[in-house]
Amino acid sequence: MSKKILIIGGVAGGASAAARARRLDESAQIIVFERGPHISFANCGLPYHIGGEIELREKLLLQTPESFNSRFNVDIRVQNEILAIDKQAKTVTVRDIVADKEYTESYDALILSPGAGPFVPPISGVRNHLTHTLRNVPDMDAIITSIEVNKPQHATVCGGGFIGLEMAEALRHRDIAVTLVELAPQVMAPVDIEIANVLHEELKQHNVDLKLGKALQAVAETTVSDSSLTLTLNDGSTLETNLLIMAVGVKPETALAVQAGLELGDFGGIKVNDAMQTSDESIFAVGDAIETAEFVTGEAMLAPLAGPANRQGRLAANVIFGSDETYKKTQGTAICKVFDLAVASTGMNEKTLLRKKMPYEKVYVHAMSHASYYPGAHPVSLKLLFNPENGKILGAQAVGKDGVDKRIDVLSVAQRAGLTVYDLQDLELCYAPPFGSARDVVNQAGLLASNVMKGDEVVFHSADIKQLADNQLLIDVRTEHEVDNMGMIPGAINIPVDDLRANLCNIDKQKEILVYCQVGLRGHVASTLLKNSGYKVKNLTGGFKTWKAFNY
Amino acid sequence: MSKKILIIGGVAGGASAAARARRLDESAQIIVFERGPHISFANCGLPYHIGGEIELREKLLLQTPESFNSRFNVDIRVQNEILAIDKQAKTVTVRDIVADKEYTESYDALILSPGAGPFVPPISGVRNHLTHTLRNVPDMDAIITSIEVNKPQHATVCGGGFIGLEMAEALRHRDIAVTLVELAPQVMAPVDIEIANVLHEELKQHNVDLKLGKALQAVAETTVSDSSLTLTLNDGSTLETNLLIMAVGVKPETALAVQAGLELGDFGGIKVNDAMQTSDESIFAVGDAIETAEFVTGEAMLAPLAGPANRQGRLAANVIFGSDETYKKTQGTAICKVFDLAVASTGMNEKTLLRKKMPYEKVYVHAMSHASYYPGAHPVSLKLLFNPENGKILGAQAVGKDGVDKRIDVLSVAQRAGLTVYDLQDLELCYAPPFGSARDVVNQAGLLASNVMKGDEVVFHSADIKQLADNQLLIDVRTEHEVDNMGMIPGAINIPVDDLRANLCNIDKQKEILVYCQVGLRGHVASTLLKNSGYKVKNLTGGFKTWKAFNY
Repeated sequence: MSKKILIIGGVAGGASAAARARRLDESAQIIVFERGPHISFANCGLPYHIGGEIELREKLLLQTPESFNSRFNVDIRVQNEILAIDKQAKTVTVRDIVADKEYTESYDALILSPGAGPFVPPISGVRNHLTHTLRNVPDMDAIITSIEVNKPQHATVCGGGFIGLEMAEALRHRDIAVTLVELAPQVMAPVDIEIANVLHEELKQHNVDLKLGKALQAVAETTVSDSSLTLTLNDGSTLETNLLIMAVGVKPETALAVQAGLELGDFGGIKVNDAMQTSDESIFAVGDAIETAEFVTGEAMLAPLAGPANRQGRLAANVIFGSDETYKKTQGTAICKVFDLAVASTGMNEKTLLRKKMPYEKVYVHAMSHASYYPGAHPVSLKLLFNPENGKILGAQAVGKDGVDKRIDVLSVAQRAGLTVYDLQDLELCYAPPFGSARDVVNQAGLLASNVMKGDEVVFHSADIKQLADNQLLIDVRTEHEVDNMGMIPGAINIPVDDLRANLCNIDKQKEILVYCQVGLRGHVASTLLKNSGYKVKNLTGGFKTWKAFNY
Repeated sequence: MSKKILIIGGVAGGASAAARARRLDESAQIIVFERGPHISFANCGLPYHIGGEIELREKLLLQTPESFNSRFNVDIRVQNEILAIDKQAKTVTVRDIVADKEYTESYDALILSPGAGPFVPPISGVRNHLTHTLRNVPDMDAIITSIEVNKPQHATVCGGGFIGLEMAEALRHRDIAVTLVELAPQVMAPVDIEIANVLHEELKQHNVDLKLGKALQAVAETTVSDSSLTLTLNDGSTLETNLLIMAVGVKPETALAVQAGLELGDFGGIKVNDAMQTSDESIFAVGDAIETAEFVTGEAMLAPLAGPANRQGRLAANVIFGSDETYKKTQGTAICKVFDLAVASTGMNEKTLLRKKMPYEKVYVHAMSHASYYPGAHPVSLKLLFNPENGKILGAQAVGKDGVDKRIDVLSVAQRAGLTVYDLQDLELCYAPPFGSARDVVNQAGLLASNVMKGDEVVFHSADIKQLADNQLLIDVRTEHEVDNMGMIPGAINIPVDDLRANLCNIDKQKEILVYCQVGLRGHVASTLLKNSGYKVKNLTGGFKTWKAFNY
């Protein structure tokens, strides 16, 4: 007998599951319930329509219930909300919002793909006509209407994650003054502070008033005729604004799972096994609502990302039709455009490694996106985190105007394949002057990390230079011109790398020598020269550029 | 006692070896001999200075002998040519071209990095003042002088490889009419014909007069006062041109190796082991002059590429100073800009697999470089070759305006790491609308190939549709609109995918059904629908778009 499959949620994971189920079985009965008016819309594109880069709203509506049904013979019921799941009876209670009636559907297998909703903290006054969240097309429409009707001079975005940053940029594109409020000391939580600081500078360059380490505490009472809000932050300061976007984070939609008595994980997401099954074997869950296993540690985490959601949806359908394949964990590879920059990451960041007390080492590379002599090359700053015991890749982060995506893609594949930093040296990446360098950023990171692994170079880090000990000598090996233009790290003396050999007689062999240059390469030349001349020496990974990024 | 290392050739591999040797040993004596006037110049940038994209000639001169010496304490002797190697005595005979004198140097280790020179076939009349090759800065200067002095209306480029294509583009940038003559039926030998055909169209769009399957047979006699050449091609046609660039290929510079009695390989390159040692253990060879092991087969090949050359140079230095590391074979990852397109490849191509009679299967993906609803998305056409027995990646090729480099980078890493097509489905690649898609081109290729591996989908290829058998039915599942606009494959009938279910009663179950759509995705939906309805069915991988590329 043919299976009856119900899918709750018609975006990303839900739509993937429906299409896949039909391809696996022509006779299955497949029903998708979507509370909202649209299925399979481009939720990642919403900020870009608000900002105007995506001109046509229709472009975001990838499928209609009709188009999806004629392609896949799937019964799509938009504006139909699931009220309850009865896992014993294997039925759901549905409310047809338009017809205003309730009905019941039975299932053989149920797939939950409810997503994650914007989290709005219980701040006094925050529910008002000038405050919005952004999750779906109606939310987007409401923000656009608010902009067109109220013509805000100033907007405030709370939250510096993906949506917060994209909204800040979208509003600046519309020539609206923007204040961005973020509780953490940095935006873009997946990357570490020294990478985030590059974004902070970019935001300031684009006239975003950035308030880090601050939170919204209260919104003064408003009436619907008001065209501005008075915000009070947790430092007591106040702010007048005409539009408030709340984007402090998302939380898994688990109401139905809780009602059905399904197990949740420690982070509040629906708990699933590696076949996407919940604690009830006939009920599957996929996408932003679930907890998934982090790639390195295998520990549960929330990873609200489109790619994993699609894979999980497909996988759930496969399992329902008998496949024994399993979900291969989540690295959390992600990227965000922040004005002219891209910032991307994969795997674990340093903050998390520190918190989990895991052993790690790190190197930085600052290099050009392609051959520096070919027009349009821009610096890429890459941070590579690796296990100092076996050289395995723990995570990577990069920021720059161009070529950030491909370096993180390469490192994401390398990590997933279990490669070590030694292997990164030998990767053959596309090289011609318009596209890369004969020794790519990733190759360079592999070389540096391999040197560290083998003990060929001892590195030190920007955080280690708080106070020089008496037996330490800090040498800046850049040119005088660079030092004059950019300054030095306090306590350093300047001996340009090309003058170092001639000056060895002046360098005390009893001291530990710390060298640095602008990005680390000349520092490497200097440190090997000194090491091979009998000195105890360390090189600053990432050089002055990383030091400046830390001390922004 | 400190080692004395001689390096012949100061570009790419030679320069890498010198710098690495110094970092390994401060006391070694290191001498680099370079016949030409420059070391470490940007040979890959030469065409772009001719074309004008790289405005300043100085940008191509990455190092001077002085700068290299002050950084690395390496004795750089430009315009010093090695006349002979005495491997018994461990000496070389050198001619100082400027001082016009000869001298001898001894060595403990010798590294040959002579490169590969342009191959000019012995064509009557080809040595003349209007004919050039392009290998180094003086060659480039001569071409630019020729352009500035003679103001050519028309130029002819012989050879459609990297340099030929880059020169065709450079000359068009200078508004010179260009004829490109290539003996093979396609340009860009590393890719297969259906990918190359996309380049052929691009060349025509940019008014390059493309003569495929043709060769230069003779150049009519000229005097230095002539401002044009009369070329005769092998089809008897003639051509008047004002500038002739010979770029039919390069051949390893092996004169010194031959003189020294070192072994050559079957392809005429210097034979080395995986420690870069020649048949004489004190003589190493790196770069374009050597034969290297192909990644999949381990068989010898010539791979004149900058990335491998640099790695080999570094490796030779490491081995000289005691390292036991080995060279990890060459995939031949390469990319070329052809006007607005990029074409790239890694691993083996189909021509080679056929010639070697190796088992393979292939799939094509045509998808957008990033989310189609975000501005600036362009199609990427990807061909993935894999081993049908174990799913391992054999090679990949891609062409498109944007995002070609990163897809081939990802597949190059995946191949090197030994991943299978199954693994490609799960790769987590950077996704946000400006950068990619939730299901990337590479993920799609992995899904298609996995379906083929598992037998979930049977594919057929454009070459298989020469003549339909009586028991075959070819169904075009695109919309009527598409069919009207783009035509159909001869013999096909049109049933749009969304109408297929309703028309099953009209499709003969006794026939083998061949379906196709524009790129293969709807064909997959149609073929699974038909398969699950009891039909014997195959889907055309790459769809009508790949068929058109074959039948260009």
